[in-house]
Amino acid sequence: MRDVARAAGVSQTTVSFVINDVPDAHIAQATRERVWAAVERLGYRPNAIARGLRRDTTDTIGFVSDAVATTPFAGQMIQGAQDAAWEQGKLLLLVNTGGDPAVEARALATLVDRRVDGIVYATMYHRVVTPSRQLREVTAVLLDAEAADGSLPSVVPDEESAAFTATSIMLGAGHQRIGFLNSADASPAASGRLAGYRRALEARVVPFDESIVRSCRAVQGGGYDAARALIGVEDPPTALLCFNDQIAMGAYQALLERNLKIPGDFAVVGFDDHELIAPCLRPGLSTVALPHYEMGWWAVEHLLELIEGSMPDRRTPVVQHRMRCPYVARQSV
Amino acid sequence: MRDVARAAGVSQTTVSFVINDVPDAHIAQATRERVWAAVERLGYRPNAIARGLRRDTTDTIGFVSDAVATTPFAGQMIQGAQDAAWEQGKLLLLVNTGGDPAVEARALATLVDRRVDGIVYATMYHRVVTPSRQLREVTAVLLDAEAADGSLPSVVPDEESAAFTATSIMLGAGHQRIGFLNSADASPAASGRLAGYRRALEARVVPFDESIVRSCRAVQGGGYDAARALIGVEDPPTALLCFNDQIAMGAYQALLERNLKIPGDFAVVGFDDHELIAPCLRPGLSTVALPHYEMGWWAVEHLLELIEGSMPDRRTPVVQHRMRCPYVARQSV
Repeated sequence: MRDVARAAGVSQTTVSFVINDVPDAHIAQATRERVWAAVERLGYRPNAIARGLRRDTTDTIGFVSDAVATTPFAGQMIQGAQDAAWEQGKLLLLVNTGGDPAVEARALATLVDRRVDGIVYATMYHRVVTPSRQLREVTAVLLDAEAADGSLPSVVPDEESAAFTATSIMLGAGHQRIGFLNSADASPAASGRLAGYRRALEARVVPFDESIVRSCRAVQGGGYDAARALIGVEDPPTALLCFNDQIAMGAYQALLERNLKIPGDFAVVGFDDHELIAPCLRPGLSTVALPHYEMGWWAVEHLLELIEGSMPDRRTPVVQHRMRCPYVARQSV
Repeated sequence: MRDVARAAGVSQTTVSFVINDVPDAHIAQATRERVWAAVERLGYRPNAIARGLRRDTTDTIGFVSDAVATTPFAGQMIQGAQDAAWEQGKLLLLVNTGGDPAVEARALATLVDRRVDGIVYATMYHRVVTPSRQLREVTAVLLDAEAADGSLPSVVPDEESAAFTATSIMLGAGHQRIGFLNSADASPAASGRLAGYRRALEARVVPFDESIVRSCRAVQGGGYDAARALIGVEDPPTALLCFNDQIAMGAYQALLERNLKIPGDFAVVGFDDHELIAPCLRPGLSTVALPHYEMGWWAVEHLLELIEGSMPDRRTPVVQHRMRCPYVARQSV
């Protein structure tokens, strides 16, 4: 840090303020840029600098998310992260930003200011993100998110293999015409699951038929409408892969209203294994569980390894972990 | 604080450490007790002391909960608290304790150590709690929880008036025999809703019949079994008040399996207005919304009033707020 201060022509305190982005430090933009230029010129790893500034561990980890804490979908990521943290005597400090970049910047500054040992950055569903500079300046792991430039370690569900497995199970149960109710929103989940579905069909030499692949809103009403439409096509499918359990719930309603039996007339498989839906439908919904708890655990464990390990060699690859999604068999196939 | 230090025969730093319960401060139990005795003898309000210790505001609020962030039920309390905090430029730091008293103690110490301006203490469902001494030593508001001794301000749903309204609406729709599927777990919600149900019957001079009031597990499977049993009794009800939307979901399944029409043959009302259940059932479930968002907002707003207001007069009553629960009409009555 002394070298950086000398190269930038500022005090060590100023370097510390700039690197930690301390609010209200009143440092001119030109000075900030000079400090960062020196950091880059000298080839410092910001992580190492941040670690050097830390007098000792505070035994706290920051968990910054868009809406993981407020929506009813991915809370088990927090549970897994929390349990992994507690096992090693660390406390998790959560900030939910609502996805607002200004709040996120403030949250990161506040947590760094409070000297958290590192940060888990989580999104409520699998997304590709562009990490802010603040995030790249601390030890951080992405949870259910991937950095567009691969610059940060991350853990996400293996969407493609999950859909491959689910589709293969329906094929194995004798279904040759399997419809797919996908989400209309572009996402790594939507494209990955479509790829896995196609690969499973190919593996069994079953033709891909675009007419029984539909995009809909990823909620119960979207699934209901899309399933009704699919039931009505010429040569309808006998099985449905659904992008999530909510779509599957809507499909159930559409099928049961036509007196179609599940799984006798129609097999249905969802994604999520949501506790309020999958085991509560009648018959119980077979589905692919997103490993939220396990991903949360992994993110904290990996973060602690990065913090406690020796300074990583520049050539050490950044880990991008795709986690297997277990298939949960109930009564719908 | 100087007076307390002098009366206890210790340094002001020791008083500060004891009052903030700073971890690893290595202060003998006897000394701690002497400090607290002096605090009480001198009639200090711990809140005021805590405020005095604070050099300035940190613009952060602690949000400590058992499992609000990890379960899919009350996340909107966090959303409301967060929005109210942000509106006043405050950041919410969340810690989820899983209900573990040791973790809670550590969480409170960590947040006080990081000089949060105050703490919202939330439970995932309406509970009566005994606040720890740590909590009583800071400015705190209880959210969806009440202090057994009324020592802290709190906001909870008005369970009784909510059940009174829901029952009255079914009576107004012509139902005279209204069953009640209550939760088997004793709680302010279970007792309050039963009281409101009874009061509504009394108000219309409809006899209370214990045989159509059942307790069950407050999940879909519990509601399914209890509803099946109630349908089979002699002189069955024509309407069901359900403790929550999950029980109502199970009741729907039991009714539809017997080809009973909702609302033609049976009216059903739930509690929660859970986004994954109430609007997703067919027909849409009429239900009582728990004002999670509004309670979260209120808790932070009240906390900030307490922090920013002058030191409250000792005679100022501690506010215990019961919040109205709006009835959400859909198609099930």
